[in-house]
Amino acid sequence: MEAVIWKRPCVLALKSCGPFATCGSRGTFGFRNGGRAPQRTFILRVINSTGSGAVVARPSSARKYKKSEGVDRKLAALRQLFHKPGLQMDAYIIPSQDPHQSEFIAECFMRRAFISGFTGSAGTAVVTKDKASLWTDGRYFLQAENQLGPDWMLMRAGTPGVPTVSEWLTDVLSPGSKVGIDPFLFSSDAAEELKHTLSTKDHKLIYVYDGNLVDEIWKEDRPKPPAAPVRVHDIKYAGLDVSSKISSLRQNLVEAGATSIVISMLDEIAWLLNLRGNDVAHSPVAYAYLIVELDLTTLFIDPSKITPEVTVHLRNSNVTVKPYESLLLEVERLANCGAKLWLDMSCTNVAIVDAFHSACNKYFENLPKRSKQKSIKERNKLLNAKSIDSEMEGPLAIHKASPVAIAKAIKNGAELDGMRQAHLRDAAALAEFWTWLETKVVQDKTTFTEVEVADKLLEFRSKQAGFLDTSFDTISGSGANGAIIHYRAEPDTCDIVDDKKLYLLDSGGQYVDGTTDVTRTVHLGEPSSREMECFTRVLQGHIALDQAIFPENTPGFVLDVLARSSLWKIGLDYRHGTGHGVGASLNVHEGPQGISYRYENMTGLQEGMIVSNEPGYYEDRSFGIRIENLVIVRDMETPNRFGGNSYLGFERLTFVPIQSKLLDLSLMSPAEIEWLNNYHSEVWEKVSPLVQGDVHEWLWKNTRPVPVHSTA
Amino acid sequence: MEAVIWKRPCVLALKSCGPFATCGSRGTFGFRNGGRAPQRTFILRVINSTGSGAVVARPSSARKYKKSEGVDRKLAALRQLFHKPGLQMDAYIIPSQDPHQSEFIAECFMRRAFISGFTGSAGTAVVTKDKASLWTDGRYFLQAENQLGPDWMLMRAGTPGVPTVSEWLTDVLSPGSKVGIDPFLFSSDAAEELKHTLSTKDHKLIYVYDGNLVDEIWKEDRPKPPAAPVRVHDIKYAGLDVSSKISSLRQNLVEAGATSIVISMLDEIAWLLNLRGNDVAHSPVAYAYLIVELDLTTLFIDPSKITPEVTVHLRNSNVTVKPYESLLLEVERLANCGAKLWLDMSCTNVAIVDAFHSACNKYFENLPKRSKQKSIKERNKLLNAKSIDSEMEGPLAIHKASPVAIAKAIKNGAELDGMRQAHLRDAAALAEFWTWLETKVVQDKTTFTEVEVADKLLEFRSKQAGFLDTSFDTISGSGANGAIIHYRAEPDTCDIVDDKKLYLLDSGGQYVDGTTDVTRTVHLGEPSSREMECFTRVLQGHIALDQAIFPENTPGFVLDVLARSSLWKIGLDYRHGTGHGVGASLNVHEGPQGISYRYENMTGLQEGMIVSNEPGYYEDRSFGIRIENLVIVRDMETPNRFGGNSYLGFERLTFVPIQSKLLDLSLMSPAEIEWLNNYHSEVWEKVSPLVQGDVHEWLWKNTRPVPVHSTA
Repeated sequence: MEAVIWKRPCVLALKSCGPFATCGSRGTFGFRNGGRAPQRTFILRVINSTGSGAVVARPSSARKYKKSEGVDRKLAALRQLFHKPGLQMDAYIIPSQDPHQSEFIAECFMRRAFISGFTGSAGTAVVTKDKASLWTDGRYFLQAENQLGPDWMLMRAGTPGVPTVSEWLTDVLSPGSKVGIDPFLFSSDAAEELKHTLSTKDHKLIYVYDGNLVDEIWKEDRPKPPAAPVRVHDIKYAGLDVSSKISSLRQNLVEAGATSIVISMLDEIAWLLNLRGNDVAHSPVAYAYLIVELDLTTLFIDPSKITPEVTVHLRNSNVTVKPYESLLLEVERLANCGAKLWLDMSCTNVAIVDAFHSACNKYFENLPKRSKQKSIKERNKLLNAKSIDSEMEGPLAIHKASPVAIAKAIKNGAELDGMRQAHLRDAAALAEFWTWLETKVVQDKTTFTEVEVADKLLEFRSKQAGFLDTSFDTISGSGANGAIIHYRAEPDTCDIVDDKKLYLLDSGGQYVDGTTDVTRTVHLGEPSSREMECFTRVLQGHIALDQAIFPENTPGFVLDVLARSSLWKIGLDYRHGTGHGVGASLNVHEGPQGISYRYENMTGLQEGMIVSNEPGYYEDRSFGIRIENLVIVRDMETPNRFGGNSYLGFERLTFVPIQSKLLDLSLMSPAEIEWLNNYHSEVWEKVSPLVQGDVHEWLWKNTRPVPVHSTA
Repeated sequence: MEAVIWKRPCVLALKSCGPFATCGSRGTFGFRNGGRAPQRTFILRVINSTGSGAVVARPSSARKYKKSEGVDRKLAALRQLFHKPGLQMDAYIIPSQDPHQSEFIAECFMRRAFISGFTGSAGTAVVTKDKASLWTDGRYFLQAENQLGPDWMLMRAGTPGVPTVSEWLTDVLSPGSKVGIDPFLFSSDAAEELKHTLSTKDHKLIYVYDGNLVDEIWKEDRPKPPAAPVRVHDIKYAGLDVSSKISSLRQNLVEAGATSIVISMLDEIAWLLNLRGNDVAHSPVAYAYLIVELDLTTLFIDPSKITPEVTVHLRNSNVTVKPYESLLLEVERLANCGAKLWLDMSCTNVAIVDAFHSACNKYFENLPKRSKQKSIKERNKLLNAKSIDSEMEGPLAIHKASPVAIAKAIKNGAELDGMRQAHLRDAAALAEFWTWLETKVVQDKTTFTEVEVADKLLEFRSKQAGFLDTSFDTISGSGANGAIIHYRAEPDTCDIVDDKKLYLLDSGGQYVDGTTDVTRTVHLGEPSSREMECFTRVLQGHIALDQAIFPENTPGFVLDVLARSSLWKIGLDYRHGTGHGVGASLNVHEGPQGISYRYENMTGLQEGMIVSNEPGYYEDRSFGIRIENLVIVRDMETPNRFGGNSYLGFERLTFVPIQSKLLDLSLMSPAEIEWLNNYHSEVWEKVSPLVQGDVHEWLWKNTRPVPVHSTA
């Protein structure tokens, strides 16, 4: 099985790359359309599903890369398709998306890598009749230079003077050109924005429905779509049965005047149906769509993925199964039946939206003339309405953020318990790992490559009960590599982990009961005073956020400054957000909440949400520091409740020692030192029962209190 | 001379009254249109100008209030005017604005108080053929009940179920009604919003140009417009001559493709022309408009205000003077000459905007037909353009925030020096005042009314060199009155200041060289532990903000959380912003920057700006606490400059002791105690040379360090 690095790019986001824009760190989240869809910022590995349903995690060292060949022939073949009957296109855009705006995608959707040869995680390829350009951001300039063939032009997104995809297209095409896209790979919002920009030069955006053009060249070499079986997510972890979840969703529909909704985000479907899949690495989801009507729930999925157990589960939940490919037909049927269809334009692909709108148009065209006039007028008035009168005649699209995102973000008791349990086992695995690493490097004077260390970590995690997969590709960065926020160690080129440098390790696991994501930075030798000052300030930011108490519904960005203040004091900062949502045995990145300098995400923090707390500092060509815990948003039961508000705070989920020797205690206040000592005492209390022998000893040593000095 | 309480209401803002909305504290600022125009939140006193040019500050005890009479007759008279030839109106809205969206307004503009009898600072009166309603917010419900006659309906804005002005109008009027306003009293933005809402029920908003209808009833009793002489603001305080300021402004015009601009904010005119006026209390401004063209600067002002000295000053600065009333004619002339006119729609009244647009229409109508077609098409395309091609034929309105606001907000060296000097003298006056109060109350066991204490404070301030006026009406709140954020003590009803209660004093002075604004809260007896905990937490917030260091251009709202965190820890908060801009010997409230939970104000903090730092806590019917200093935004010269940014922090301007006995030191960190001790040592160092005898002794006692304990 071949694996490649991949990343879901957002074509239109490429223009905002640069300091404090989308190309921040893995912790950075951009939410398009008011906090709806998480925008990928993480390096990911996508594996072609084995179809066996087995655990798919495998060591990084098992991966191989092939240098792309024959790019020219591919380009020529693609351009030939521009002239297919009925097409007559002047350009074709190949993004990195799958049809579900997923963070991690299956190999069969890696069309941009296939056509361009560039395997970096972020990028958009655009091919015109005589030009081929690839946009990527600063992290990948070097890799793209190496991988792109001579016919490709590298567009260094975020560099002054470099046009965006649509700017470039409007510039190089003669006015009135046709630009093609695969409508399944663009959200409706993204397609609309692209269409709008292109229209300023009278270019036309056309949706190429009958097959992706790259697939026509890829032919039989194209990996098969993943077909891993889905499994039932046990009610003891899910906490709420499918009927209850669907029932709440129907309540949302009724309140919005809708009669049905299309759900296309894979984690939303998995959460709603208490199902988990195995179609992509890191995310326990399956490729599917879901339509929920007021009296019907239909899952669109490859039927071969449905095991007998799942069949029973779905039948008990009154969920009908139809083939994945039949979705558009069903959407058209909804229009014909006069459905008021709720569509989240930020994550629903434009093929679906377009199918519904076209079917609506047909519906009204086929009406008797007098009735038609009235209905079309009414419909036009309300097509974008936020809430509508469901008595209104005829079908209607209701453009609104999916209500499932927020329902999923607010975890129930069982989900929180599962997360707590998974984090304890994960903490035990990490204690074993750190004991191993410290012993080998410090005592045995052995060194390992960054990839070897990451593989060893996976080994320890894999031994834990309920372990399924890593929750993302481990970031194992030694010395200067730690400063590359999206660093991904490769077997052939990576650095060694030794006692000379800071070592940053950001990793996580998928367990049957929960999802983890933790970063620690350590020095196995003698850290410099600069490294210690920076580490201390990062920890101070981490503590300040951890200790925050705030009124319910405070948007996450309000708290972001708490994590930065200590760094700002000496003129330092980090170019990524401070926290992202995390799913319960689901995606390691989920919306809509976040803690970031992206001030437009007004989603308020609510009890039961989970966020990461991960400030960092990165010194170019020198070292990187990040300290990350996951926390649960909890009612703090404050002695007062000014304004009738609950005041919320955080319960820690992650229990992994923070290396005290990296701290400059003279910079810390007594309260901060107290926090550290309390945290370590909690780590000892919770994790020591799960480990033995030298690991037990290591944990003891690494959770001892540091002295509180008398002045800050 | 009669004085009334007044406040500039925003008709449309009334709908957002409630927790965390416009009706916050005096420190709360809302900036309409992206941080442009400061929205009034302060109680103010407006006096009818004496025309003598003398200092107009006078003790609060000198003010008297008349109970309104004959409201019915006034309403009847107003309704008669609805049928004036050419009008045929169904309703008339009487806001509290002057034509310049000023915070403090002249008595002749107090039309809402005249017509309704309600003298509260915020309110909008609406009169229809058979109804009369007055909107005000929670602060004034009681006062309005007392003052409104039987024909008036009180609309308790912010209370659930109470409609907004436009909701009510659309409801009570029969469809297609005509609603009249005085177009000089509504900003273009406000008028447009009103027009839009009314249009949903086919009502029409009409601009009544030929005189305000209330004035027609007020007749000769209406106070004369103020006619106080203006004076030159010495270059040693202004720092920059008028020609340089105008020249920078012209550069802004050229960059935006504009050829002229109308400035209508009085403080912008005062700042640009280095002039100060005496037309309203608290703000050293004069009623005027200014038009700056690329080669001409015209001041529209009552010529009787121009002294020989000012005549010379204006001549040297190439500023022409025209009568105040001739502005609209000049605006029309600009259209006729094909001007590209920069208009800030958030603060320019709709009379001006409408005059220009109408004249533009005439211009194009009078063009030969072929040329007309093209120009109108081009013009329509660009009417709202942000920057335009100045070669384009014909006049054009460029709707854009005035560039003067930000230029004025960033103080130059001379302005900052003036502010520092004024603050030292103000601090000396306050030291004298607090010595007096403490001696009288604690030693002599005397008590005073809140008004008497405020008057005494004015007496001390008046003795300082360069003192001109209070910068706003002193908030002198004892005990429970301190919890009324906009409290204004009245001689007949106010409480006493004694040694039994907390006492909140928020006051400021206008000096020739600067403007001050300072709040201290003290207890002259034994504070309760509750009061001490709250005071300590307010101070902790004050310290956290004071000590903040942040990248240049950080929006102020990012820092707001720092001032609230300590209160949030125990579930407390305050319903006002934390900081507002302050003018240099100008308005005590100015934009565009602010520090607030109003997350929409994206104005970045820049070196040279001045803001207040004033967290508070208010316990209903019990006590109020606020601690306010003014600070200058300064480059902190941090050892690092991550991202190439300057890192900014604050230099304190205010040097008045903070009452240590109100502190629960056990809650404070060593660093916080150190801050307090350093601050007091700075106060002693700077202010002690300016005071003698018992004041010197009081200052010594009140600036002694408190002990730093060993744990936080």
